[in-house]
Amino acid sequence: GDQAVLIVHGRDRTGIVAALSAVLGRHGANIVSLDQYSDNPQGGAFFQRTVFGRPDLKAALPAIEEDLRRELANGFELEYTLRDLSVPKRVAIFASKADHCLLDLLWRNRRGELPINISMVISNHAHTADEVRSFGIPFFHVPSQGPDKTAAEAQHLQLLTGNVDFIVLARYMQILSADFIEKVGVPIINIHHSFLPAFIGADPYAKAQHRGVKLVGATAHYVTEDLDEGPIIEQDVVRVNHAHTVAELRRRGADVERAVLSRAVLWHAEDRVIRHGNHTIVFQ
Amino acid sequence: GDQAVLIVHGRDRTGIVAALSAVLGRHGANIVSLDQYSDNPQGGAFFQRTVFGRPDLKAALPAIEEDLRRELANGFELEYTLRDLSVPKRVAIFASKADHCLLDLLWRNRRGELPINISMVISNHAHTADEVRSFGIPFFHVPSQGPDKTAAEAQHLQLLTGNVDFIVLARYMQILSADFIEKVGVPIINIHHSFLPAFIGADPYAKAQHRGVKLVGATAHYVTEDLDEGPIIEQDVVRVNHAHTVAELRRRGADVERAVLSRAVLWHAEDRVIRHGNHTIVFQ
Amino acid sequence: GDQAVLIVHGRDRTGIVAALSAVLGRHGANIVSLDQYSDNPQGGAFFQRTVFGRPDLKAALPAIEEDLRRELANGFELEYTLRDLSVPKRVAIFASKADHCLLDLLWRNRRGELPINISMVISNHAHTADEVRSFGIPFFHVPSQGPDKTAAEAQHLQLLTGNVDFIVLARYMQILSADFIEKVGVPIINIHHSFLPAFIGADPYAKAQHRGVKLVGATAHYVTEDLDEGPIIEQDVVRVNHAHTVAELRRRGADVERAVLSRAVLWHAEDRVIRHGNHTIVFQ
Amino acid sequence: GDQAVLIVHGRDRTGIVAALSAVLGRHGANIVSLDQYSDNPQGGAFFQRTVFGRPDLKAALPAIEEDLRRELANGFELEYTLRDLSVPKRVAIFASKADHCLLDLLWRNRRGELPINISMVISNHAHTADEVRSFGIPFFHVPSQGPDKTAAEAQHLQLLTGNVDFIVLARYMQILSADFIEKVGVPIINIHHSFLPAFIGADPYAKAQHRGVKLVGATAHYVTEDLDEGPIIEQDVVRVNHAHTVAELRRRGADVERAVLSRAVLWHAEDRVIRHGNHTIVFQ
Repeated sequence: GDQAVLIVHGRDRTGIVAALSAVLGRHGANIVSLDQYSDNPQGGAFFQRTVFGRPDLKAALPAIEEDLRRELANGFELEYTLRDLSVPKRVAIFASKADHCLLDLLWRNRRGELPINISMVISNHAHTADEVRSFGIPFFHVPSQGPDKTAAEAQHLQLLTGNVDFIVLARYMQILSADFIEKVGVPIINIHHSFLPAFIGADPYAKAQHRGVKLVGATAHYVTEDLDEGPIIEQDVVRVNHAHTVAELRRRGADVERAVLSRAVLWHAEDRVIRHGNHTIVFQ
Repeated sequence: GDQAVLIVHGRDRTGIVAALSAVLGRHGANIVSLDQYSDNPQGGAFFQRTVFGRPDLKAALPAIEEDLRRELANGFELEYTLRDLSVPKRVAIFASKADHCLLDLLWRNRRGELPINISMVISNHAHTADEVRSFGIPFFHVPSQGPDKTAAEAQHLQLLTGNVDFIVLARYMQILSADFIEKVGVPIINIHHSFLPAFIGADPYAKAQHRGVKLVGATAHYVTEDLDEGPIIEQDVVRVNHAHTVAELRRRGADVERAVLSRAVLWHAEDRVIRHGNHTIVFQ
Repeated sequence: GDQAVLIVHGRDRTGIVAALSAVLGRHGANIVSLDQYSDNPQGGAFFQRTVFGRPDLKAALPAIEEDLRRELANGFELEYTLRDLSVPKRVAIFASKADHCLLDLLWRNRRGELPINISMVISNHAHTADEVRSFGIPFFHVPSQGPDKTAAEAQHLQLLTGNVDFIVLARYMQILSADFIEKVGVPIINIHHSFLPAFIGADPYAKAQHRGVKLVGATAHYVTEDLDEGPIIEQDVVRVNHAHTVAELRRRGADVERAVLSRAVLWHAEDRVIRHGNHTIVFQ
Repeated sequence: GDQAVLIVHGRDRTGIVAALSAVLGRHGANIVSLDQYSDNPQGGAFFQRTVFGRPDLKAALPAIEEDLRRELANGFELEYTLRDLSVPKRVAIFASKADHCLLDLLWRNRRGELPINISMVISNHAHTADEVRSFGIPFFHVPSQGPDKTAAEAQHLQLLTGNVDFIVLARYMQILSADFIEKVGVPIINIHHSFLPAFIGADPYAKAQHRGVKLVGATAHYVTEDLDEGPIIEQDVVRVNHAHTVAELRRRGADVERAVLSRAVLWHAEDRVIRHGNHTIVFQ
């Protein structure tokens, strides 16, 4: 049906829920689901996700937004976003050689599992071009050109600017510059392996096998300037044992990676994830 | 701090959230957490759990309740319960021979994990009496007396009436009569094994081992007249394999049972579980 | 390297392991891995999976097999299979409308995760033909022709006979006749949903949602005449909650189905699964 | 029945399995289970765990051992241990304030789940004395005396020497000196929290909550001089979310800790864990 999602986020205070629901009530909107969380009832941070519907929603949204703006200006220290849920978010997927995360997203999208519009796939390798295009999705090959990423990133920005609402790094093996992250101006979701205990540097699965870990895992997070240290969206693990080769660890790790990434993309696409400092609130 | 929980449940309609939060706002109450769910925005069932606080809450609760009652009489078809969270629910635990679920609840309660007041343990076996009493909890031995449960259930009712807010069957191996369930008048939580695919009748673990299942599980549910068919609160499973003996399956099953039961008890004690028809809404 | 797998299965007796390893030793074969299981040391059933290697294995296998045959004739009641691991098993995949299990197998095979040779895909729907063929795999459309399956199954047998070592039903929604199962003469692996508690008949996900289950699962098993009652190879579950729609349950169920089926296919392809009565021994 | 376990570990070579099973066969022993693993068939490390039985085993063991010794001296570079499974391993449990791991082990042992003989509990806190003794187990209070552990460790050694086969640190919050580890001369199993990504230092659950992790976990490992870096025996995790307080993370973490530690103790007690370099082979 006709539904919109309202995210409100800021300083907690008595009366926010009442004020917001009064606004929606004045416009004949019915609340379909409401999740609220406050990290400290005494002046902490407040988070609310509300999905609401009404007939002829699209026409009514500007007036609802205007009313919200006025209400929230009224002494609240809150930010909000309001979005028509019938308009899927536009996403660019970045990939490299490994195709497990990329293909999983393309399949899920084709099956109707993800409320997203995949605008393009950008890769520094050309070999998945035909397969991506068989899904009806534009594929752009932007080779990496060594340590100086200026030219490649300029190409990326040209392709992306105005065309996407968020970016997914589906095992994209190039580091994004702080400059690119700032200029592109949309959220970027990354997936990386994660271990107990953690291994860094090259060939983490070989290190994990040598250390004899019993679990391998994956973490999806928002990209910030601190590589792999941005707010975590989702994590999961899978059991392994001493008899698993490094190749088998990689295979199992790849399964967790695609599962974790697809959940992170789904939740972001449905505006279920709110960033706050270096962590996330995920309303499921 | 001083907090109360309000559960509202009934027919969905525009404006419920606004009406409820306006009542709380009028009484200076700050909403700490709010979970809302509607199973069908077009006239389905509505469920809301709200935790709120304010200074001097206990004194203010009667006036808040009076205001709620008036507001909800105003055209809403809703039921509500309002409870001071500083008053733990009183519970009776029923047990038989196996002690894994019983002891797990006693330990967790002593550690401060469960917001409950264990009023008594009732068992048809006497052997756990000393251990239960070492936790400072009254133990009553009510032997089972064959197929006619009238006398035993009369004793149960005498012990329970007025003294408990809910009952936990911690692997209690006697069937409760429909008459008892009606007379005792408080929710009863049970735990039983569950399998993929399901086995019924005696010695389910032996059947499961013979069938070669790869998972064994447990289900916690509210007791209704239909044995083991009441609303499910929580379920979980654990992996097993061909090399596990029936004893090992039982051991692993016992681990899942105590884990699942303790979660069900916790969520019920925190008023996170709403019954609706034959299923539950669990706000976590 | 050059490796073979030897499966031995039969009545337990003192000395089997010694006799088998002596044979391998006589032929200069080194044991790479050995898993053994006895379901009852006093005259129960014995199961052993041995992977061994030696230079120039292919040439040596006939002599090894001859020696094994002679040794096992010597008072043992055992069956054995001996297979060169460098020769992948040939498999036919049967599919219907849903493509999640089919595509997952094709893609894992292309990645090199499955030691199988997919000889053909047979479907009663034509819509996946292009995609299957883009993997370089023959696709045969055999429409279902109502309740009388004689003609369709005759076509299946013509395609399959002599060409495949096992069959995978990747969400194939047609029932196989007992006659077909007998004539085709190779193992058949099926995947179906499984629930706690179980639901049968049409639309199990709708029933599961109505019942309020907290887990949905999948079971991979060998097909026998008793539909969905054959020996279980693998099972797994995923958590769900009250807020999940029937579509969301189906989506999560599909994820478990493809994961469970791919593990069952891998283990079968590596001769890790031994059928015994109505259950399996799975050496991992 | 009468069973023994034989662990063999060393340099891989053709013929080990045959030689070992020939020895057992000569003594009329029937192999109940055999697990073998080689980390590299070309001259890697070889690991084998064999459980075998025969009537009047105890009397026969010395002759079997003598024969094994002779056979293995014959050109193999292997170490072995042979143990009568009817003799449970003797264990000392070290604890501090938190009692969840301690009580779980005491209770599992009383239920007959663990083939161990708990010789004593040693704690630097006195408050669990009565409860431990109610299980019929000696309790010794050895207070910690600041940074100089010499006196306390001398007391520990006096209590332990000759009396235990391994030690379990059940959330023991004191660091053991390298000198103590060497002198006590038996394996020591520890349990600690583990996170994705990892947090070190004080108050890890607070750090984890601040970082917004979605999983908390626990790792059981053998103690070496490198604190918390010894060979991993078992790991597991549990899901958490943004709404969980630090106390709730600790509670969930405690559940995983006791589960992981009890599995590690069980597997060690059954000689299923073989140490090799800084990792373990766990035959399940």
